[in-house]
Amino acid sequence: MSRQSSIVGDIGGTNTRLGWVAHRGDLPSEMQTFRNCDFASFDVVLRRYFDAIGRSNCGSICLAVAAPIDNEFVTLTNCDWQIDSRRLQQLFGASAVYLLNDLEALALSLPCLRVSQTTRISGLSALRDMSARKLVVGAGTGFNAASIRDKTVLAAECGHMTLPVQTLDDLQLRDHLAQGRGRASVERALSGKGLCEIYAWMAHKAGHTPQSFSAQQIAEHALNRSDQVCEGAAKVVLRLLATVAGDLALAYLPYGGIYLAGSICRSLAPMMSQSRFAEIFAAKGRQSDFMQSFPIHLITDDAAALLGCAAHVDSAATMISEHSA
Amino acid sequence: MSRQSSIVGDIGGTNTRLGWVAHRGDLPSEMQTFRNCDFASFDVVLRRYFDAIGRSNCGSICLAVAAPIDNEFVTLTNCDWQIDSRRLQQLFGASAVYLLNDLEALALSLPCLRVSQTTRISGLSALRDMSARKLVVGAGTGFNAASIRDKTVLAAECGHMTLPVQTLDDLQLRDHLAQGRGRASVERALSGKGLCEIYAWMAHKAGHTPQSFSAQQIAEHALNRSDQVCEGAAKVVLRLLATVAGDLALAYLPYGGIYLAGSICRSLAPMMSQSRFAEIFAAKGRQSDFMQSFPIHLITDDAAALLGCAAHVDSAATMISEHSA
Repeated sequence: MSRQSSIVGDIGGTNTRLGWVAHRGDLPSEMQTFRNCDFASFDVVLRRYFDAIGRSNCGSICLAVAAPIDNEFVTLTNCDWQIDSRRLQQLFGASAVYLLNDLEALALSLPCLRVSQTTRISGLSALRDMSARKLVVGAGTGFNAASIRDKTVLAAECGHMTLPVQTLDDLQLRDHLAQGRGRASVERALSGKGLCEIYAWMAHKAGHTPQSFSAQQIAEHALNRSDQVCEGAAKVVLRLLATVAGDLALAYLPYGGIYLAGSICRSLAPMMSQSRFAEIFAAKGRQSDFMQSFPIHLITDDAAALLGCAAHVDSAATMISEHSA
Repeated sequence: MSRQSSIVGDIGGTNTRLGWVAHRGDLPSEMQTFRNCDFASFDVVLRRYFDAIGRSNCGSICLAVAAPIDNEFVTLTNCDWQIDSRRLQQLFGASAVYLLNDLEALALSLPCLRVSQTTRISGLSALRDMSARKLVVGAGTGFNAASIRDKTVLAAECGHMTLPVQTLDDLQLRDHLAQGRGRASVERALSGKGLCEIYAWMAHKAGHTPQSFSAQQIAEHALNRSDQVCEGAAKVVLRLLATVAGDLALAYLPYGGIYLAGSICRSLAPMMSQSRFAEIFAAKGRQSDFMQSFPIHLITDDAAALLGCAAHVDSAATMISEHSA
């Protein structure tokens, strides 16, 4: 085993993706994806992956987790997994285990992204100016954002911010999503589950019985224009996403660009232009010209978080060398 | 003249406050306040101040301005003043002129604030942990926020974010504030003008003719409980402020504390406890316990921006020495 090798991983709400980095600075390779619900614990997934790539240990492990990170221990709410960095260190002989919030990992990937890993939504092409702040906005199993400047990530819990409401229709949707909770957060609408709930709510409003579509199926029907209610629900999600992304742009001033990530953003991206995404994003009154300062891109490579993990291992290793020099 | 001396200033929407820093690291002294509308230009104000303190020039000038800063030149919308840093440099013999956004200056003051310059609103006493991010939220002539960590300020334009709406009453207020504009920003409600508009709207709703109260008068009537409509308007502003402050806490995760500033926050602060400010701030569903991580303080010293300017001059001077060393 090389001390320079590492396992990088992205533990989402539904799937876990793992990759191998043979030497610091290399891109992740030998990527594999596992369905969380097929495994009793993350330890088993990691053991399975080591077997699959014909190895038994590594120098370090860096995992992006869709959960708030509390030091060395994370409990995943969706699948009851516990990620214990000390235990992983012992089990797999790693000299260091790093746990990152998934959006932090995506933020760390932003300076390394190549043009082929993104699609431009609006504004000028991605700025390569590394001194300007970059913001990633992720909508998938959940919703969150993180920003990066000079290799320093600012983490956030934006999914719990107040869902924006600007019309009576919005308010009715908000009241529906708030049922039994007293409030509706951004994540209640801007997530896979949110798309399903908005679809069901719109079907009921239109006098239909909603079908038991997954978020992916709703997105496909919307894109194919094969179901009007699905199309309507997708448009509502895109409109709210554009408003929230605009608000977050005003909070972080990401002159280095906004990067949309996550399964909801990726699957609905082809509808962004017809849904006037860029106009709604910029609709901030007197600030609409100013809003053009923030180019918007979509991260098309859904393994981007692994890049961020690799970047983190690389800079953590550099820091260790500097300290020991 | 000592090259170490500087003028520090806070140019607000209504008043300009100036102070003298004899040596780097000193606190500002000889503070004076000027009403902007009494002067044709800022140059005249500055000349008047120099005369008043019996000096004719200084080493450097640092000004906090309630406007977005575009390099070396700022136009103030309220009073038609232009602040031109090169011109000020020539007029007053300063070797450097720094222009800061007013919220940036307040953010720079946070690590220097003493307990006597703040009041605790909720949470534990102010953390002296300088490695944790601190957030300042200002509501006065306008609304904005800025955060600081490790002496680095993150500027924002939060006043233009979408005004939160959670009830039908909120939506009606939002529609009223949005009249002729198509949208209502946070600043439309959370500012002196916002308090006046909310008062007038509530008076009309209650069948009264609104009186031509200033924001200060409305706040006084609310505090004295001498006018029910004023009291209602103040409560609406505090409720929206608490919701927005909570949303911003989720965006910046300011474990080093949230600091409320500006005339609206200061004048309504005595009502915060009866208006359940802390509860509304924390009302983020499952995150309500997590929201206790962010202690809230009020900046009671309305000259705090001058402290931030002095800190900026000090650190800019240190950087110059480091570069020339």
